[in-house]
Amino acid sequence: MSQAFSIDARDGSARAGVLRTGHGDVRTPAFVPLASTATVKTVGSSEVADLGYDMVLGNTFHLFIQPGHELIAELGGLHEFMGWGRAIVTDSGGYQVFSMGHGSVAEEVKRRRGERKSMIVAIEEEGVRFRSYLGGEERFMGPETSMEIQAALGSDIALAFDECTPFHVDREYTARSMERTHRWLDRCVEWHRGHAPPHQLLFGIVQGGVHEDLRAQSTAYIDAAPLDGVAIGGSLGQSKEQMREVVEWSLRGLRDERPRHLLGIGDVDDILHAVGAGIDLFDCATPTRLARHGTALVQDPAGRWRLDLTKAEHRASRLPIAETCGCLACREHTRGYLHYLLRAGEPTGARLVTLHNLTFMEELMRGLREAIAGGRYADHAASLSESARV
Amino acid sequence: MSQAFSIDARDGSARAGVLRTGHGDVRTPAFVPLASTATVKTVGSSEVADLGYDMVLGNTFHLFIQPGHELIAELGGLHEFMGWGRAIVTDSGGYQVFSMGHGSVAEEVKRRRGERKSMIVAIEEEGVRFRSYLGGEERFMGPETSMEIQAALGSDIALAFDECTPFHVDREYTARSMERTHRWLDRCVEWHRGHAPPHQLLFGIVQGGVHEDLRAQSTAYIDAAPLDGVAIGGSLGQSKEQMREVVEWSLRGLRDERPRHLLGIGDVDDILHAVGAGIDLFDCATPTRLARHGTALVQDPAGRWRLDLTKAEHRASRLPIAETCGCLACREHTRGYLHYLLRAGEPTGARLVTLHNLTFMEELMRGLREAIAGGRYADHAASLSESARV
Repeated sequence: MSQAFSIDARDGSARAGVLRTGHGDVRTPAFVPLASTATVKTVGSSEVADLGYDMVLGNTFHLFIQPGHELIAELGGLHEFMGWGRAIVTDSGGYQVFSMGHGSVAEEVKRRRGERKSMIVAIEEEGVRFRSYLGGEERFMGPETSMEIQAALGSDIALAFDECTPFHVDREYTARSMERTHRWLDRCVEWHRGHAPPHQLLFGIVQGGVHEDLRAQSTAYIDAAPLDGVAIGGSLGQSKEQMREVVEWSLRGLRDERPRHLLGIGDVDDILHAVGAGIDLFDCATPTRLARHGTALVQDPAGRWRLDLTKAEHRASRLPIAETCGCLACREHTRGYLHYLLRAGEPTGARLVTLHNLTFMEELMRGLREAIAGGRYADHAASLSESARV
Repeated sequence: MSQAFSIDARDGSARAGVLRTGHGDVRTPAFVPLASTATVKTVGSSEVADLGYDMVLGNTFHLFIQPGHELIAELGGLHEFMGWGRAIVTDSGGYQVFSMGHGSVAEEVKRRRGERKSMIVAIEEEGVRFRSYLGGEERFMGPETSMEIQAALGSDIALAFDECTPFHVDREYTARSMERTHRWLDRCVEWHRGHAPPHQLLFGIVQGGVHEDLRAQSTAYIDAAPLDGVAIGGSLGQSKEQMREVVEWSLRGLRDERPRHLLGIGDVDDILHAVGAGIDLFDCATPTRLARHGTALVQDPAGRWRLDLTKAEHRASRLPIAETCGCLACREHTRGYLHYLLRAGEPTGARLVTLHNLTFMEELMRGLREAIAGGRYADHAASLSESARV
């Protein structure tokens, strides 16, 4: 356990601080862009740094499958491999392994469960056997495998291997899975203590699905473990209201001084709520994935902060995405041009909107950090939620 | 006719000069990157400028089909539409219209002619009727249409509408087509004189296929016309040797003081030869298209100046593409990382290699300009052709 995290300002339950890593400081609260496949899709590592980001998230599962952690280690570790000198957090691989079997939350909500064949061969105490989505061959991942991969990648923050239980399973399955995830946590801590690179921090993951008592048990277990930080994972429910409730249960009773990462959440309203509840770190595919599908993030709460540039109304627009934004897309291009690029399938379009959305997210988080430091978080969050459409 | 072109240095038949356009000077000899669809694929306009390019090439045919020249005019013209403040040359659309019917040279050489259905409805004195590759509806393009589109785009150099005859047609067809292209040239000159934006220069295109006498006729016709420059188009044959011969026939008897653009040629050895023969401008899809398929341009004549980064030998390479290159890909990334990105289909890979190849081409051309200015062109071209593999 390190004293890697310091909280410099508090405002209600919100905190602003600094997480010190082997590759520089991460100012919190922070949004962490996904570099799942060792690249933030369409954007270069130096550009991500230029946008002001202190940390990106690498994907243990994907990099295990392709190109393999041994190769990345041979090429100097994930930082050197992808030309990124700042901090990296790697997820444990649990989420991806289990979504291959359980399906994603979105698929569940849309009742599409069962439409695709599970790639999971067996979930056992030792770990999970599954088929690679590339070659179809059987692979294995358990707590030690996950830790070994993350050590080879050399990430600054490793996450303990967990089963990410889906929403549709019953309380009984969720409880048994959570208990196994706790046993896996102990094995991760043990492996990490003996083998991890000295600079690597370890976070545990709170599970327990949408059950208040299970979340309480899991939070207590994770809080008692010798860890550098806490992540909140698993099913957060099927609505924003339920998600907020689950986050609050998961935070209840956690010691104050460890950094807290809410996994996979990145909608603006959710971030505003969760930072207010005491979350320090976020990662999410949404900002970059939306961009690739032509949707820009804008200060428009009524429109879910989204502007769909592929809509016909933008065809002849000479406006930038946002008048006040300083990103490359807004400085140099109109909505009309972006609309055309996106409709024509030109990769330049996806790239420009990605740069915009990452700029938007970093400016959002900077504003939140400043508001907390200034003791005006609630007002700031409220003003963002009420702003007129730009 | 303007005095837009000045030749500042000569070395044998090679010339180095400056072409003055409505959007700045173009230093020649120059390679002109393709921005066929109003973007250099994967790269932003400001990045292309940062790489040192003075001019890009927009595609009359593609922009006519999507998003339409009227929209681009409404959004301020092609420069403003794509956020590019430097010079633009637009091709006439002839090449694309006719390749839909005749097939490409590569298809011809591979004897694939006839495998795809022609989209051309009719080639008539008035112009060409064809089906759009987007919606399938019938469209028309003739000399005046082409000029009107190029005027709406507001390019700095317009090319006269021509039929680009394929290699497989006989001498008789080539001769009749050339004569029609000459009549079309007169109509282009006429339209351009009355309607073109004042800053727009007009180049004519030498046709005549692989027939020495027809090339001589066409060159004489183009040379006598009131034009700002000359382009060499049509079938240049099926081998590099034949292409060089056709280029020499096409240049023979041309007045010296007009700029000369060799259409669609961009291999390094071909450029070295053609600059030596007196060509000033080149455009070609190859450098950027190769990049998207994972091949980098390198100083390796024996390997046709190509390095296929997708080959297994680069998997664990810690070398940059080229030790001496200052591009983003070479400064920040290894061949191993690029190999992985390209194999994984990550758009970041195509983008990084595109940046490299465009850097390579601009440095090549700068070196040629300096060599001509220094009176050592032949030695310089020979040294490039003989360099050891790097």
